[in-house]
Amino acid sequence: MDQQYLPRINAGRLWQSLMDLGRIGATPKGGVCRIALTEEDKRGRDQVVQWCRDAGLAVRVDAVGNVFARRAGTDPGAPAVATGSHIDTQPSGGKFDGNFGVLAGLEVMRTLDDLGIETRAPLELVFWTNEEGTRFTPVMMGSGAFAGLFAPDFVHAQTDRDGVSVGAALEAIGYRGTHPVGEVPGGMFAAYFEAHIEQGPVLEAAGLPIGVVSGALGQQWYDVTVTGMDAHAGPTPLALRHDALLAAARMVDAVNRIAVSEAPHGRGTVGYLQVSPNSRNVIPGRVEFSVDLRNLSHDGLDRMDAAMRAAFAGIAEHARVEVEIRQVVKFEPCAFAPACVDSVRRAAASLGLPHMDVVSGAGHDAVYVAQRAPTGMIFVPCKDGISHNELEDAMPEHIAAGADVLLQAMLEHAR
Amino acid sequence: MDQQYLPRINAGRLWQSLMDLGRIGATPKGGVCRIALTEEDKRGRDQVVQWCRDAGLAVRVDAVGNVFARRAGTDPGAPAVATGSHIDTQPSGGKFDGNFGVLAGLEVMRTLDDLGIETRAPLELVFWTNEEGTRFTPVMMGSGAFAGLFAPDFVHAQTDRDGVSVGAALEAIGYRGTHPVGEVPGGMFAAYFEAHIEQGPVLEAAGLPIGVVSGALGQQWYDVTVTGMDAHAGPTPLALRHDALLAAARMVDAVNRIAVSEAPHGRGTVGYLQVSPNSRNVIPGRVEFSVDLRNLSHDGLDRMDAAMRAAFAGIAEHARVEVEIRQVVKFEPCAFAPACVDSVRRAAASLGLPHMDVVSGAGHDAVYVAQRAPTGMIFVPCKDGISHNELEDAMPEHIAAGADVLLQAMLEHAR
Repeated sequence: MDQQYLPRINAGRLWQSLMDLGRIGATPKGGVCRIALTEEDKRGRDQVVQWCRDAGLAVRVDAVGNVFARRAGTDPGAPAVATGSHIDTQPSGGKFDGNFGVLAGLEVMRTLDDLGIETRAPLELVFWTNEEGTRFTPVMMGSGAFAGLFAPDFVHAQTDRDGVSVGAALEAIGYRGTHPVGEVPGGMFAAYFEAHIEQGPVLEAAGLPIGVVSGALGQQWYDVTVTGMDAHAGPTPLALRHDALLAAARMVDAVNRIAVSEAPHGRGTVGYLQVSPNSRNVIPGRVEFSVDLRNLSHDGLDRMDAAMRAAFAGIAEHARVEVEIRQVVKFEPCAFAPACVDSVRRAAASLGLPHMDVVSGAGHDAVYVAQRAPTGMIFVPCKDGISHNELEDAMPEHIAAGADVLLQAMLEHAR
Repeated sequence: MDQQYLPRINAGRLWQSLMDLGRIGATPKGGVCRIALTEEDKRGRDQVVQWCRDAGLAVRVDAVGNVFARRAGTDPGAPAVATGSHIDTQPSGGKFDGNFGVLAGLEVMRTLDDLGIETRAPLELVFWTNEEGTRFTPVMMGSGAFAGLFAPDFVHAQTDRDGVSVGAALEAIGYRGTHPVGEVPGGMFAAYFEAHIEQGPVLEAAGLPIGVVSGALGQQWYDVTVTGMDAHAGPTPLALRHDALLAAARMVDAVNRIAVSEAPHGRGTVGYLQVSPNSRNVIPGRVEFSVDLRNLSHDGLDRMDAAMRAAFAGIAEHARVEVEIRQVVKFEPCAFAPACVDSVRRAAASLGLPHMDVVSGAGHDAVYVAQRAPTGMIFVPCKDGISHNELEDAMPEHIAAGADVLLQAMLEHAR
C-alpha cells in the first residue's frame, strides 16, 4: 500500500489525552506524581478505564491489578495482538514515560473505530501494575507476575514503608481483580508491542523519530565496600595511607573502561557513592558505592563481571585496602522476537519515517512480556533524553509517529 | 656531659598527670571531649593552673585566654625560654594531642625544682586557646592572635553555632584575662619548643622514639564542583554522558599523582566528596569535593596548584563536564629556626635517643609562634599514627623520652 493511503492515528486526540491524563497527579513544575496504588493512581486508572469503555473495549482486571481492555476481532478464537505499558510514575515523573504507550494503544483502538477497520484477531490494550517500583518492589511487578516470575501471593504480600501490602492497596483502590494472573482469553498474545519514549539521547542525537528496538540490555547491579583506614591528611605520608576513596575513585574509572571495552552495548555506571567519615582533612577509611553493568549478551555481562572483579582486586591490593563486592540484582539480556522487530521496522519504512535499530538500556514491561509472547518495542525521542524528571518532554510529531508505527505493526499481525 | 649524668624528668609523674587531666571530659571509649571554652575546658584549665601554682609558677592570662606560667630565672631581664601546646580537644579526641606538650612543659618545671636547677633565663609554660577549632573558628586561635594574625576584637567576635561569642565564652569560664595579647614580660621568647604526638605513622614505622621537626608543610585547601548532567544509567550510551562522578574520580586520582610527583613532602587528599542525586541507576549530574594539598615549599605548593588546575581542566573537557575550583584556605609552609631544630637534635643525641628529622604535616600552635620567636618541635610516636580519635594512644617510654628532650633543649637555651 502506498504510504499516503495508510491509516493514521489522530495526533491531536492522542496529545490531548496525554495532557488530560497528565493533570491527574500534576506537579507544579509540569511533571506528574502518580505513584503505583495510591489515590492518584486510582484516579488515573479510572480515567483510562472510562476511556476504554467509551471506546467500546471490554475491560478485565487480574488479581495483581493489571488492566486489559479488548477490542473484539472477527475470529473469536484467535489469540489477541496486544499493546500496553504503565501509567504509574516516579515521584518526580513526567507525562510521557509509560503513559505514552498506554494512550498510543488507546488511540490505535479509537482510530480503527473512526476508520471502521475490523481485524481478524482481537486487539488488547494493557496497563501493567507498578512498573516504576517506587512504593513497592520489585519493579515491573505486574508484567513480572504476568510472565510468571512473581507468584500472586508474593506480590500481594509486598509492603511499602508504612507496612501497607500490595494486596490491601489494590483493594483500597478497587483494582484487586478476579481474572487469573497470566491467563489470556483465546490463548497467549500472538504479539505484544510497547511504544515508549526512549528515555535516552540516542534518537535525538541522530535526529530520527523512530527507534526499532531489537532487545534490552541485561543488567547486573552490585554493592561495593572499600575499607581502608581513617587518618589525618597532613601527617600521613602517601606511602603509609590506606585511602578508601583513592581506591574507589580508581574503581569508578575502571568501571568506565570496562564498559568502553564492550562498545557499543556495554554500559557501566557508578551512581551512588558514600564516603566515610567524609571530612575535609581526614583520609577516608571507608567508601560504599554501587555498580550498574549492562550488556546485550550473557557472555558480555560475564566478561564485564570478571573484568570488574579482577580490576577491583588489583586496585585494592595496590592501594592497601580491602574490597567487598556483592551482586544485588540481575536482569537477563532480552532479544525481542524477530517477527515483531521486523514488523516495527517495516511499519516505520512503510510510513516513510526515518528510523534506526536501537537497544533498550532500561528495563520495560515488554522485557517480561517477551518471556511469554513474541514482543517488540517502538521508541520515540524525548527532549534532551530526560526522563524520570518533571522536565520530561516529547514533540507532538514524534508522539504521533510512534503511534502510527504501533498501529501499522499491530495491524500487520491482527489482519 | 655524659648522658648518664643528664637530668631526667619523672616519667611516672608525667604519665599520671596525663591520666589525671584525661579524666576531665573523659569519654566511655577512653578518649576525651574537652572542647575549647566549654565547662570541661574550664575544669581542665583550672586543673593545669592549679598544678602550675603548686609548682610555684606565676600565672597570667591574656585577653584571648592564653595562659602563661613563668618560672623565674637568675637574670630578671632575660627573655624567657618557652614551651607549650593546647589542652582543648576534638569532640572525639584523645588524652595526648596537645595535652602531652603542656604537661611535658609542666614536668620540666617540676623536674628542675626537684633537682634544684636554676636557669639564667626565665622559663615559661603556655597553653594556647582553642587550637582545635571545633566550636569556634579559626583553628589555632590563641597562638594566631599571639602572632598578630588575628586581632583580639576579631577573636572575641567569633561565634559558635548557637551565636555565643568567644568573648562571652571566655568570660563565662573566667579566662578573659587582662594581659595584652602578644606582649611578653622581658621581651619576646628567646626560644619556643613544643612537644607533640606525631599524629602520623612515620616514627612508629621507623621504630624511633623522637622526631626532630624541621618545619611544617604549607597547606592549600579547595572546594571543587563538577557539573555534568543527570541521566539514566541504562538508556544513555557512554559517548553521550556528562558523568560528574567519573570526572571527579579521575580528579581524585590526579590529586594523588600530583602529590606523588612531589615526594617526599607532597601530600594530596580528597577527604570529602558528595554525589548528586546519588541514586544507583542515575548518572551523577553533580559532584562536590574537597582538595587538601600540602608541601614544604612555596614553590612546591604553587607547582601542585598549577598541576591540579591543568589536570582538572583536561579531565573535565574529556568528560564533557564543567569544573569550578575555589581555594578556601591557605597556610604558608614553615621552616623552624635552625638554632632550635639543632637543639632538639642535639638533645636527642646527648640522651642516646634514636631520632630522625621529620616535617609536620599538620598545623600546630608552634607554626604561628614561629612567626614571632625562634621555634622548634619534638615529635613522639603515637599508636598506629591515630589521633583526633578516642583510640589515640602513646607509649609511656616515648612520652618520657619526648619530655627529656624538651628539658635538654630548653636548658641549652636557658642556661
